[in-house]
Amino acid sequence: MTKPVIAVIGAGLIGRSWSVLFGAAGHEVRLCDMSQAALDQSRQWLAERLPAAAMQRIRFYLELERALDGAAYVQEAALEDLPMKLALFQSIEDLVDDDCVLASSTSALLPDDIFAAMRRPERCLVAHPANPPHLLPVVELVPSAATDPAVIDRVAAMMTDLGQDVIRVQQSAPGFVLNRLQSALVEEALRLVASGVASPDDVDRAVRSGLGMRWAFAGPFEVMDLNASGGFADYAARLGPALAASAPGGSETSAWHGTAPALITQARRESLDIKEIPARQRWLADKLQDLRRLKQPLRETSSEGALS
Amino acid sequence: MTKPVIAVIGAGLIGRSWSVLFGAAGHEVRLCDMSQAALDQSRQWLAERLPAAAMQRIRFYLELERALDGAAYVQEAALEDLPMKLALFQSIEDLVDDDCVLASSTSALLPDDIFAAMRRPERCLVAHPANPPHLLPVVELVPSAATDPAVIDRVAAMMTDLGQDVIRVQQSAPGFVLNRLQSALVEEALRLVASGVASPDDVDRAVRSGLGMRWAFAGPFEVMDLNASGGFADYAARLGPALAASAPGGSETSAWHGTAPALITQARRESLDIKEIPARQRWLADKLQDLRRLKQPLRETSSEGALS
Repeated sequence: MTKPVIAVIGAGLIGRSWSVLFGAAGHEVRLCDMSQAALDQSRQWLAERLPAAAMQRIRFYLELERALDGAAYVQEAALEDLPMKLALFQSIEDLVDDDCVLASSTSALLPDDIFAAMRRPERCLVAHPANPPHLLPVVELVPSAATDPAVIDRVAAMMTDLGQDVIRVQQSAPGFVLNRLQSALVEEALRLVASGVASPDDVDRAVRSGLGMRWAFAGPFEVMDLNASGGFADYAARLGPALAASAPGGSETSAWHGTAPALITQARRESLDIKEIPARQRWLADKLQDLRRLKQPLRETSSEGALS
Repeated sequence: MTKPVIAVIGAGLIGRSWSVLFGAAGHEVRLCDMSQAALDQSRQWLAERLPAAAMQRIRFYLELERALDGAAYVQEAALEDLPMKLALFQSIEDLVDDDCVLASSTSALLPDDIFAAMRRPERCLVAHPANPPHLLPVVELVPSAATDPAVIDRVAAMMTDLGQDVIRVQQSAPGFVLNRLQSALVEEALRLVASGVASPDDVDRAVRSGLGMRWAFAGPFEVMDLNASGGFADYAARLGPALAASAPGGSETSAWHGTAPALITQARRESLDIKEIPARQRWLADKLQDLRRLKQPLRETSSEGALS
């Protein structure tokens, strides 16, 4: 049984990267762009990244109508411009089969806005990747108020088949999940620089040699869960007050005092039995050692001490 | 020439991990704890992680006086308790040579408080590692108002020799740099859960399969620098407003509107010529592919499509 045909609209970096993912997983991909030059560049870019067999599944189109003929799923990756996307999706809707699913890669616009004028908004959603999607295996699926939950389920299954981790965003709000988390850290990073606490390079060092290495394998809640023998609940009881005090808005407004800690405790214990914490700690330590080796293939120790 | 002798005070997880780092780099290490059981456990823990030659450089002490005899650098890693640390450092000061450098591993206390009663606070500082230091190659050096900048330089050189990336914190404030960045992201993560936007597991997925993978190799400013053809200045001009809008406090109070973007642009161009951006992008893409392989040794593609 063949995999559904995918139309990728827009041959910029995101559209090309989506094409790698879909093509590598066995889908026929129709990559469409109004610019022949963009299509030519894409063909070369894709040929450098895909095996020949997968490359044969990628077709290039200047005309939307031909690209969409027979497509079961459309991944739009055009510019972040609301009037343009509104018009584009209306054109797409006129050309696809009734059961074709329509997804936007937008990071900046909300699905309720993009799909406001659709006749059948129930089959429309945002599927926002990290950049670039073929290297960062995550996608957030964001419904509009009108999206059919069964459509989210189907797209989640397809994205999982591509190898992407799926984030199901429950409420559409600016930044979704990925960019809200990123913006929170970036905002604090900017404040550290603006207030003279650390240089830009030192902030980058703190992330790439510290926080980012752990977060490459375990998200923030799992990290805290593994950093206390009694798991997240233990961690929150012992260190929650100090973390709340160093939160950007200070302790008084901190979400440490709300419902989140109990919800996270419950989710962590459903994901990992508390007796499994030591084994998972060892797993994370092993992964960090692998990553250190990957980052520093040859670490030499100097023969003299620096404090002498 | 032999490396300076290190006294590590406190044989908990942080003290043991410091001992691995110092011992592996060729220092003689005196690990001191009031508990014989903690020392016995540490001996076994260290033996599992250090080659025999390095293990021979680790000595275990119950008595502070003997552990400190001849030490050139003291890395305190005791409990996070201010009265205890105040008393401990005063005891240490009475027992060490005049030119011995004294460092605390504290994450929660400020150097001006810990070293308030020292006779010679100029040789005292906070050297706060990520947890655990032997797996996460970063340390932040935090001076008190009385710390001699030359002492920071000497400790920075020694830490670099250990393989640690050094963050020079310019002003001592709660959370220093590492925990302020971590708290900012964690606070937003808690808000996403409390407001029902995403489940705890989905927040963890967003970090470990997206943001954290990039941040394991490049900090937030370098990531932005590499995500626009004109570097950070280009990125800030095009995406700064959207990022400010999704910052926790909203656009009006965002640090995107302050001095930080210009400072970061300057720092990035001093670190990387703008003509080198494409090569560095390829470097990061290669690293992300290596990391994907490390995380998913065998990725199989199913034979059937999910959208059918």
